[in-house]
Amino acid sequence: MKTDIEISQEVELQPIQKVAESVDLGLEDLELYGNYKAKIDFPSMKRLEKNEDGKLILVTSINPTPAGEGKSTVTIGLGDALNRIGKRTVIALREPSLGPVMGIKGGATGGGYAQVLPMEDINLHFTGDMHAITTANNALSALLDNHIQQGNELNIDARRIIWKRVVDLNDRELRQVIVGLGGPIQGVPREDGFDITVASEIMAILCLASGLEDLKLRLGNIVVGYTFDREPVTVSDLEIQGALALLLKDAIKPNLVQTIYGTAALVHGGPFANIAHGCNSVLATKTALKLGDYVVTEAGFGADLGAEKFLDIKVPNLKKSPDAVVIVATIRALKMHGGVAKNELNTENVFALKKGFANLKKHIENMESYGLPVVVAINEFVTDTKKEVEILLELCEEAGVPVELTQVWEKGAEGGEALAKTVIETIEKQIADFRTIYSMGIGLGEKIETIVQKIYGGKEVVFSPKAQKQLETFTKYGWDRLPVCMAKTQYSLSDDPTKLGKPENFTVTIRELVPKLGAGFVVALTGDVMTMPGLPKKPAALNMDIDKDGHAIGLF
Amino acid sequence: MKTDIEISQEVELQPIQKVAESVDLGLEDLELYGNYKAKIDFPSMKRLEKNEDGKLILVTSINPTPAGEGKSTVTIGLGDALNRIGKRTVIALREPSLGPVMGIKGGATGGGYAQVLPMEDINLHFTGDMHAITTANNALSALLDNHIQQGNELNIDARRIIWKRVVDLNDRELRQVIVGLGGPIQGVPREDGFDITVASEIMAILCLASGLEDLKLRLGNIVVGYTFDREPVTVSDLEIQGALALLLKDAIKPNLVQTIYGTAALVHGGPFANIAHGCNSVLATKTALKLGDYVVTEAGFGADLGAEKFLDIKVPNLKKSPDAVVIVATIRALKMHGGVAKNELNTENVFALKKGFANLKKHIENMESYGLPVVVAINEFVTDTKKEVEILLELCEEAGVPVELTQVWEKGAEGGEALAKTVIETIEKQIADFRTIYSMGIGLGEKIETIVQKIYGGKEVVFSPKAQKQLETFTKYGWDRLPVCMAKTQYSLSDDPTKLGKPENFTVTIRELVPKLGAGFVVALTGDVMTMPGLPKKPAALNMDIDKDGHAIGLF
Repeated sequence: MKTDIEISQEVELQPIQKVAESVDLGLEDLELYGNYKAKIDFPSMKRLEKNEDGKLILVTSINPTPAGEGKSTVTIGLGDALNRIGKRTVIALREPSLGPVMGIKGGATGGGYAQVLPMEDINLHFTGDMHAITTANNALSALLDNHIQQGNELNIDARRIIWKRVVDLNDRELRQVIVGLGGPIQGVPREDGFDITVASEIMAILCLASGLEDLKLRLGNIVVGYTFDREPVTVSDLEIQGALALLLKDAIKPNLVQTIYGTAALVHGGPFANIAHGCNSVLATKTALKLGDYVVTEAGFGADLGAEKFLDIKVPNLKKSPDAVVIVATIRALKMHGGVAKNELNTENVFALKKGFANLKKHIENMESYGLPVVVAINEFVTDTKKEVEILLELCEEAGVPVELTQVWEKGAEGGEALAKTVIETIEKQIADFRTIYSMGIGLGEKIETIVQKIYGGKEVVFSPKAQKQLETFTKYGWDRLPVCMAKTQYSLSDDPTKLGKPENFTVTIRELVPKLGAGFVVALTGDVMTMPGLPKKPAALNMDIDKDGHAIGLF
Repeated sequence: MKTDIEISQEVELQPIQKVAESVDLGLEDLELYGNYKAKIDFPSMKRLEKNEDGKLILVTSINPTPAGEGKSTVTIGLGDALNRIGKRTVIALREPSLGPVMGIKGGATGGGYAQVLPMEDINLHFTGDMHAITTANNALSALLDNHIQQGNELNIDARRIIWKRVVDLNDRELRQVIVGLGGPIQGVPREDGFDITVASEIMAILCLASGLEDLKLRLGNIVVGYTFDREPVTVSDLEIQGALALLLKDAIKPNLVQTIYGTAALVHGGPFANIAHGCNSVLATKTALKLGDYVVTEAGFGADLGAEKFLDIKVPNLKKSPDAVVIVATIRALKMHGGVAKNELNTENVFALKKGFANLKKHIENMESYGLPVVVAINEFVTDTKKEVEILLELCEEAGVPVELTQVWEKGAEGGEALAKTVIETIEKQIADFRTIYSMGIGLGEKIETIVQKIYGGKEVVFSPKAQKQLETFTKYGWDRLPVCMAKTQYSLSDDPTKLGKPENFTVTIRELVPKLGAGFVVALTGDVMTMPGLPKKPAALNMDIDKDGHAIGLF
């Protein structure tokens, strides 16, 4: 069987101008990055504003399992399939972080015959967006520490700095550090830590900003810490929002690439789906909506995290809600949710499948509760038995949702055709009637309770003493009118990663709240949330190489 | 008076293909990064190999002072002036680091009417080379710490790791840190520190590598630390040279841009001139030599550091020595070398000028000792008096070197015409007869003594007890056959930054030796060498901004 990179290297890519032409963009709309990548600049986005929006299809999934669900693959394959059946479709995706690429994944641009290309570039430095974000994040840190070192006019309490440094790598060694050692000319000793770049608030800001002015405004709103009098200190207090915006002036422009089938794909921004909102940039999705009659986009992790945040955080900024939601599941993953161990997934197990279906069913109900039409996509595996497939189709029918099998990994656009037709039918038959699940006027605590009870299916929320105190102070600062961004394990509907399927009667504990005023939300931390992953014993990097002609080896 | 960025924004840039055409490169030789930047790929460099080399002009200077010398400006202006008088000339320069740009400088792409463009891009993220180097450097750190955390098969002594992390920022807070805190799952606590990216050995490697295979070989040779048995541990022991080379696959390709006058400029690589060799990449200079009949390039800091390393470290890798050396001086700077304080430089002072001339004279003699023709370029200032100018011209004549005044900052190509003609005459009259000042066969201690006595004019070298021991162990490891890279203050010929002019009878103390086996040299540290600058009280970043159309403000 061919690897992803082998498949990708066999594809004859179209010059990016050709891809642009297919969605009525000219060479003058592109800033070329080599022959196969381009950025779309603001004047072009401005010109497109007069176009009508296409239909928006959000791809999400059940709670992820180690069995793999293939959400990105389905997103890309569905886009290709829609084009194949004559629907002008643009794909909008997140861009990958180098951390997981060098660590476990080796690549994050789809798989098989559903890939965005050039995968080597997209998985490595791409157009430099991640690096610009890393630089802006760390420039803020350096300027903040320099302010303290040079007299600390703003009276910042170095013990209460909440802004961390970042690297776009998996580097556990940097999670907790002490900086500023070596005596008075080397800075002020204090505790610090590094997150992975995609966890930076600047990534979230870049993905939610509507343009350059909004970007600068949001950067200025970032809370970096507190004074000795416990007053919040922002980036605009430091007067550096201009410099940070300058560092991001190119990174904020959406990137245009193509799939194996030449479908236009905007791959731009990639915030974490735990401490941030987990979807590609508003500017990219907006641009895609102006270019395509249909736009396929995805949200990170399962529908309880990614889709909830897409709908409650991104939609108000995007000013457009989905016309349909596709929930991706695999029989293998549902069997894991039904209690099967990973090494026993190749054995038929109808009982576990039925039990695990409860996870999918809850996500279907959740998406319907937003007033959105739902389609289930079963990403097929060779180990699925005929009986398992039949049962799953029946279960979906009983739940009253359209369902289709897809084989996009193996067959590309053709393998997604049935799903594409069903999605189109669903959009034409059912009119989305989007409604939010909470109003912005209620308090932060109530918002959290609403999400836990309505979306997670939990019984109640417990706030730690620290979080309780923060609810009060955040209300005092006027931050209670913001939406909540839940930082929770992706593996379970609850805050306990071991509770698979559809847990009942559980309590969710809120450990701490974190203000992300630039992004425009308050993060609620449950349990341990990983903002800096570690590397495995044998990192993917050990297999990577470059041949004498400069071609990548070991990305997959 | 217009600022640099105002001048640059008034220039109508030529599409980079046009610039490429002027040196017989076609669109097929370019990887475009927007309309005004491009990388040149290996197949094109390979094709150019059959071309004859042009003449190489190395621009260097007296020991730098706070008065400013304008070496980059003269380098660019000389290139433009050579083209103006009909000599097909290509410029080869270092690329700027964001650290100084955000800190003091605000920009590092020449000045006035002698600039490389687009200055906004080159001063910010350019084509991503710095970020790729940062990433490769820190990926190495993460993989090294992960190796120790995951069982430490190589028996690495975490207390003896010499590989540091980097950021491309001025961030004193990161000079000395403790990493790996937080308990056993967060890594192994140890001392660490961050250098600025341009101080990374990977930057030096990128600038000395002859191609992809050599890059990988050099990366594998990096010594990262020692085992508990005091044996050196290299990147190839960690088996990650392939992954690091992959991260650098684009960064290693030279960048083509243009000057205000449309002269082709290869701006690529920028290693520090203290702990590294301080000149642009071998690949860029080599490519420039194949494209131009004349190539103007510069070396960092004064001739005692930059030019010495150019000649003793870069030339053996470039396999081409200069045909002439231009030494840049200003009357103001020479007066400072003669003892005048910065705030008194506007007053005529012939005595100080004569005294300070000793610094220039020593550099002239040094360059002549390599068998190279020398031209002195006096970069004019409005405060220079007629008498001062006359005296300086006389002093140069007495020293037997051609000398010319230049006004490239103010008048661009026209202001460098006299210098250009004199350089051409000198090259045509005097044939360079390059000879090294030491043979590679002698020991490291002898090499250091040779440099100190012949180039710096010092009396003797004192080795600290640590350095003495290292001389022995390095010889045992076979590292004594490498050239020496002196890490010394740039402000003085001695290792004491306060000794201006031409100090006599001084001793240079070698504190420590650092193996840089990937770069292929051993660094000799004298005094305190700054590998991570700090920010000033009012960093340049405070003035930076972006207007609503995305144009940079506050770069200069």
